[in-house]
Amino acid sequence: MLPTGTDALIDLALREDIGDGDHTTLSTIPPDARGAARLLVKDQGVLAGVELAQAIAHRFDPDLHFKLFLQDGATISKGDVAFTIMGSSRSILIVERLMLTFMQRMSGIATLTHRFVQAVEGTGCRILDTRKTTPGLRVLEKYAVRCGGGVNHRMGLDDAAMLKENHLAWAGGVRAAVAAVQASAPWPARVIVEAETEQQACEAVEAGADGVLLDEFSPEALLALVPQLRQRAASRVGAAPVVLEASGVQPEQLAAYAATGIDLISTSAPVTRSRWLDLSMRFDA
Amino acid sequence: MLPTGTDALIDLALREDIGDGDHTTLSTIPPDARGAARLLVKDQGVLAGVELAQAIAHRFDPDLHFKLFLQDGATISKGDVAFTIMGSSRSILIVERLMLTFMQRMSGIATLTHRFVQAVEGTGCRILDTRKTTPGLRVLEKYAVRCGGGVNHRMGLDDAAMLKENHLAWAGGVRAAVAAVQASAPWPARVIVEAETEQQACEAVEAGADGVLLDEFSPEALLALVPQLRQRAASRVGAAPVVLEASGVQPEQLAAYAATGIDLISTSAPVTRSRWLDLSMRFDA
Amino acid sequence: MLPTGTDALIDLALREDIGDGDHTTLSTIPPDARGAARLLVKDQGVLAGVELAQAIAHRFDPDLHFKLFLQDGATISKGDVAFTIMGSSRSILIVERLMLTFMQRMSGIATLTHRFVQAVEGTGCRILDTRKTTPGLRVLEKYAVRCGGGVNHRMGLDDAAMLKENHLAWAGGVRAAVAAVQASAPWPARVIVEAETEQQACEAVEAGADGVLLDEFSPEALLALVPQLRQRAASRVGAAPVVLEASGVQPEQLAAYAATGIDLISTSAPVTRSRWLDLSMRFDA
Amino acid sequence: MLPTGTDALIDLALREDIGDGDHTTLSTIPPDARGAARLLVKDQGVLAGVELAQAIAHRFDPDLHFKLFLQDGATISKGDVAFTIMGSSRSILIVERLMLTFMQRMSGIATLTHRFVQAVEGTGCRILDTRKTTPGLRVLEKYAVRCGGGVNHRMGLDDAAMLKENHLAWAGGVRAAVAAVQASAPWPARVIVEAETEQQACEAVEAGADGVLLDEFSPEALLALVPQLRQRAASRVGAAPVVLEASGVQPEQLAAYAATGIDLISTSAPVTRSRWLDLSMRFDA
Amino acid sequence: MLPTGTDALIDLALREDIGDGDHTTLSTIPPDARGAARLLVKDQGVLAGVELAQAIAHRFDPDLHFKLFLQDGATISKGDVAFTIMGSSRSILIVERLMLTFMQRMSGIATLTHRFVQAVEGTGCRILDTRKTTPGLRVLEKYAVRCGGGVNHRMGLDDAAMLKENHLAWAGGVRAAVAAVQASAPWPARVIVEAETEQQACEAVEAGADGVLLDEFSPEALLALVPQLRQRAASRVGAAPVVLEASGVQPEQLAAYAATGIDLISTSAPVTRSRWLDLSMRFDA
Amino acid sequence: MLPTGTDALIDLALREDIGDGDHTTLSTIPPDARGAARLLVKDQGVLAGVELAQAIAHRFDPDLHFKLFLQDGATISKGDVAFTIMGSSRSILIVERLMLTFMQRMSGIATLTHRFVQAVEGTGCRILDTRKTTPGLRVLEKYAVRCGGGVNHRMGLDDAAMLKENHLAWAGGVRAAVAAVQASAPWPARVIVEAETEQQACEAVEAGADGVLLDEFSPEALLALVPQLRQRAASRVGAAPVVLEASGVQPEQLAAYAATGIDLISTSAPVTRSRWLDLSMRFDA
Repeated sequence: MLPTGTDALIDLALREDIGDGDHTTLSTIPPDARGAARLLVKDQGVLAGVELAQAIAHRFDPDLHFKLFLQDGATISKGDVAFTIMGSSRSILIVERLMLTFMQRMSGIATLTHRFVQAVEGTGCRILDTRKTTPGLRVLEKYAVRCGGGVNHRMGLDDAAMLKENHLAWAGGVRAAVAAVQASAPWPARVIVEAETEQQACEAVEAGADGVLLDEFSPEALLALVPQLRQRAASRVGAAPVVLEASGVQPEQLAAYAATGIDLISTSAPVTRSRWLDLSMRFDA
Repeated sequence: MLPTGTDALIDLALREDIGDGDHTTLSTIPPDARGAARLLVKDQGVLAGVELAQAIAHRFDPDLHFKLFLQDGATISKGDVAFTIMGSSRSILIVERLMLTFMQRMSGIATLTHRFVQAVEGTGCRILDTRKTTPGLRVLEKYAVRCGGGVNHRMGLDDAAMLKENHLAWAGGVRAAVAAVQASAPWPARVIVEAETEQQACEAVEAGADGVLLDEFSPEALLALVPQLRQRAASRVGAAPVVLEASGVQPEQLAAYAATGIDLISTSAPVTRSRWLDLSMRFDA
Repeated sequence: MLPTGTDALIDLALREDIGDGDHTTLSTIPPDARGAARLLVKDQGVLAGVELAQAIAHRFDPDLHFKLFLQDGATISKGDVAFTIMGSSRSILIVERLMLTFMQRMSGIATLTHRFVQAVEGTGCRILDTRKTTPGLRVLEKYAVRCGGGVNHRMGLDDAAMLKENHLAWAGGVRAAVAAVQASAPWPARVIVEAETEQQACEAVEAGADGVLLDEFSPEALLALVPQLRQRAASRVGAAPVVLEASGVQPEQLAAYAATGIDLISTSAPVTRSRWLDLSMRFDA
Repeated sequence: MLPTGTDALIDLALREDIGDGDHTTLSTIPPDARGAARLLVKDQGVLAGVELAQAIAHRFDPDLHFKLFLQDGATISKGDVAFTIMGSSRSILIVERLMLTFMQRMSGIATLTHRFVQAVEGTGCRILDTRKTTPGLRVLEKYAVRCGGGVNHRMGLDDAAMLKENHLAWAGGVRAAVAAVQASAPWPARVIVEAETEQQACEAVEAGADGVLLDEFSPEALLALVPQLRQRAASRVGAAPVVLEASGVQPEQLAAYAATGIDLISTSAPVTRSRWLDLSMRFDA
Repeated sequence: MLPTGTDALIDLALREDIGDGDHTTLSTIPPDARGAARLLVKDQGVLAGVELAQAIAHRFDPDLHFKLFLQDGATISKGDVAFTIMGSSRSILIVERLMLTFMQRMSGIATLTHRFVQAVEGTGCRILDTRKTTPGLRVLEKYAVRCGGGVNHRMGLDDAAMLKENHLAWAGGVRAAVAAVQASAPWPARVIVEAETEQQACEAVEAGADGVLLDEFSPEALLALVPQLRQRAASRVGAAPVVLEASGVQPEQLAAYAATGIDLISTSAPVTRSRWLDLSMRFDA
Repeated sequence: MLPTGTDALIDLALREDIGDGDHTTLSTIPPDARGAARLLVKDQGVLAGVELAQAIAHRFDPDLHFKLFLQDGATISKGDVAFTIMGSSRSILIVERLMLTFMQRMSGIATLTHRFVQAVEGTGCRILDTRKTTPGLRVLEKYAVRCGGGVNHRMGLDDAAMLKENHLAWAGGVRAAVAAVQASAPWPARVIVEAETEQQACEAVEAGADGVLLDEFSPEALLALVPQLRQRAASRVGAAPVVLEASGVQPEQLAAYAATGIDLISTSAPVTRSRWLDLSMRFDA
């Protein structure tokens, strides 16, 4: 099920690309021409965007017909065919670029996410995304992260409260900041404190934070710190557990971090550093 | 001057990120708190997005005050400060992420474009972008390409006519396709033919195409083909010149391609393969 | 700070009311007429909507000038003046109705919320709203609940996960449902189980739910159940505490429920059953 | 036939409630689950919103299937089933709240309107609404008034001209105000004068007003005034009749006012004071 | 005061014309160039659109400065200067076309309306527009009609009820149709019957219609019919007057129709048959 | 294929005309009434807008059924029937006006364009439109020009670069202006210079302009100038041909201008001076 608002985004993107008309296609392809094409995989990774591609095609021309062979989240390799599309040749040619662009970007994100997930496999540690996403495309990019086996972090500033340096300073310290949020944010909003020092992390746990984001700690530092934080959590009011999250982790260090006992690693890399997967549309002769 | 429609995009992106409110900031920062921050460059490249960042800030809070030190297109290196922003601490914290995201992406594009432009410097060959851009962000990404010294290719399907394989096939060949476009597209729309063989390229020139896109030819092949195409153009009706464009060029081959005498190299790499530049917002103590 | 999207809502509401023009005012009031009016309170309760009223006025006519005497959240009684507004007489007359409508509705909600909050004062129990809000006005109605001293429950289906009867049935029971959510919802999303029996409540705690919504239990039943649930929580993995919430509570029973030791009472009454507060705009002679 | 613009309102409301996705439902209900539910009436009154509920469901998921048993405007009592809905379990659960919210509010309005209509039955007097409606929902609330047997007053400031205190003062009296409107408002716009004294009412009739709104007159005062106004109308140019409307009427006084011979009673109570009707959605086992 | 929604229309029109940027201006005019231009009248008639032109300019660039010499509704002749505009040369050049287009069209409408108004001067008959307006521009075109001294007919299907041939047939005749509307339309909606025969006109008066639209009657026929209809109106319940309107009138017959004693002549000609007035923007050297 | 964005325009226009409902139709026509109507041609010319009319009808009521007899671009004369429409009588009556308005305007444009095209038949000269179109309707009006056999000029400021007086002055002459555009506009954007003197025209050719717009030259002047410009083009770098366009041409001079050897005549007359074609909707008894 595609996120709400996907239709509006499709409309925006179609308008952006087509403008007042695809002169090339309208000049050369007759209105009643019929054709077929297949989405050919020329790369290897995890597929994402097939459901969206179908929505794009139907939004532009409800009479385009799809036959799906692979679903979002499928592992793909060179030569696979994700779907075939049949109908008006004009329509297929006009929406081709937008379908490909979305699938290439989203599959790239899913693929890199998946690699990260594999790197921590068996440790119980999970891979999360961040708010560093392409403006306007957040729900789709976070969808792609899920296709790759990742878990979504908060969708926006209106989800969990994340107390960073400036919030802590203004509120007068970790304890005061946590209390301030608990008093006025919606009840289901969790409180997460971004800690840059061991002391901040300890204070956050003691202050009752639901989660602590340990930013740019080394794996060694975490190895020592994680059990200490869990212990403090065990002795706090209600003996509430705490969720420990690492950030600032380089791809090659994923396993080392996962081995420290943390619960989550959040990283923007699958969105900001993945390359577009090589997919192409092949028209039948 | 930012492209038309930028305001609508900013609204969309702010709504996406803020949703029903930044609980963290609203809980911890008093409404009348005032502060300042500076945009610190931690990387090296070409700046793009400063004007947009300012528009984002003003759109969210017209009372935020900017002092600009660097303009879009400026060469930047570690330690540079692009601007300072002063005003409501709440506002600065809330828009920080969106300003950064846009500037990091756009500066990444400008930087890679600039490297490509440098690679062909002195040859007269120009670097162009493509239609492979992030859905919804095309005008901004193409703006970033210009900041890096590149030239924009068509903005959408409604600009020049680009005849590709399928159009040629449906129209009954290169000559018929070119004629079809010239008869019905808006008069200023140029006709470009994407050629995959030497023969197609020659036919395109003879058919009167304004430009020929030579896709995935080797530099060696082009070295022989380019003069031949120019010669044919010289002998066509009205002796019209032809614009020759190469695509499918790897970054390390840019100089070799530029040396073949072609006019343009179009590449999606600055948009699809650039990494986000490292920029950060530093709050004053 | 008004919720994001308020401007779009104001535009919608102004268009709805003004349509192609206020013929009455345009026919009778000259364009350059200037006047002043004051917002007179004729009722007693808690004020909400003043900041919005100001936004409405400025959206329609940036030259309208406000002098605020009372802020959102203030306790008000008959004869109080919340603000004065000065400027174009045409503008004041045209926006009067919309400003009043919002303030009357929102102050009604804040007032009833406040009564509920007072009824549980001293018990540590907090009053929450629900998703039963007026379509399109949720953020504003939840803002009014905060003005009255209430706390917001989730803003929409995309916040916390709330497992109700049908979700539990489809997932194959409480334990499976909780696990399913923990595996795929965004990490900061809390898991709340709506329990209709003691057994479901116990299962929810054991399954690791962050919260249990106890629907239509009697105060007597809760008196026995609450300590039992807290005890089970203490003995669960990590000894995590659980947040206990009651719903289906009649206004006259608020104190009795609060006395049972629950943490939260959620109720739609302030939104669905409050009456519009009596406020009026008085024009100066 | 639902009012124009209903689809846009549905989109707005769905987006508000669903945001980036119903995590609960997506986590626990499989995509291919099928189910059915029925709209059960647990209250008594007049139904409104069934047609809208169907539009909401189809807007979200065109494959949801409805079977209608009761139409908008039907008298309902406890145990009635208004419709059944069949299809994707996910879809039904996701749209349930919005369908209910609209039907409960609208049926509440229709029900109270109907009671008012019954209170004046047989007198020829009709019940009207006002412009005091929920911002953004006016057309739907006025639709609900019609379902209850009421008649709509003007839809917005752009319908009839209603001259109130300030308009009269600026224009230089009743006569001048009526003339000003007749000279410049669209021709079909009626002129109604809001009178607060007998003298104003008489002047309004003499000035040629189409209607006079008698605000906060007692039934006794009206009993004397109404025939007097009709007589004056009979003697005015063209012997034009005048429509007499009372406002400021308490529910318990409806019959007394209707007995005075006035034509219309306008009241915001069905919109601002009705309670949500008790309706619920029952899922089949 | 421009109609509500004008800003949205301006945005739409600017986006339509500017698209992704005015390459010509951006390439040739430096960003800091300043200039001035004046709106020169090269024709004669009635001015309309000056206020709109100013709104367009400010919408695009709030720093453009206007000096107005003539207001909407002013009589203009060759050589007049309506306003001067100063500021960014880029901005002036970019908005020039849209300002001119609106002013030329609207002034054309105002001018032809004015001629029609003059043709019936002294008769008491007024000139009305119709619903035949340019889709999307109705409020502006009706505004231009007012500038020319005309009166607006209904703004849309939601204003007065106009019973035409098909409505009468379905309702079962004039009397039934009028009654149906009076029973269910909003109370201030007048009932107008479009009559194509004398008999229909008489029936309409007797049925209590507020107005009768006499379509394609000759002046001679009206000369006899008008007094007859007024007489019938005098003898109807309440002796209500009736408003008589003629349509299907050719420009050269306006005086003859006005002399028949009818109240209104409605005509689409000022909108559908006026030519664009000759106005131009002159840049200062 | 209708231009992108047509649906949004239809929505806008329907909302404008219908507002909160067609009271007349809703009061008099039962919801289940079924009927049929035919689009009757009462004029002679070229048809345009049939495809749009169908889109309007389906947008409002997907169950309206069309039978098309004539396509856009067809030559029509009195008595022709363009289509029949069947379905809900309410729906047909409500959308009738909008369908007619668009078809009448667009057919008027197509008809006058066609006359212009006929006037230059056999000369090889083509008729172009301009940017003087109705704000918001440009794509539809340019579509109508194509239906009449005309060719579209640029769609907006973002297509070709057209250097006018002010651009030339700011850039420092024709040569500099052309160079500036070639350096920074998107590559496929042609450069056209608007010349008001022979000297400017010659300079434009020498500067390498793709086209020269010869504004308000007499046919005699062109007869001499055209061959001279072609000759200069033949001797320029690459011997590039130049496209010569005349503007400021009166309808009666079309043939004389076409005979001068120019390639194009651009004129706003089909849009700004055409009259609405006489078309009407006839309902079956």
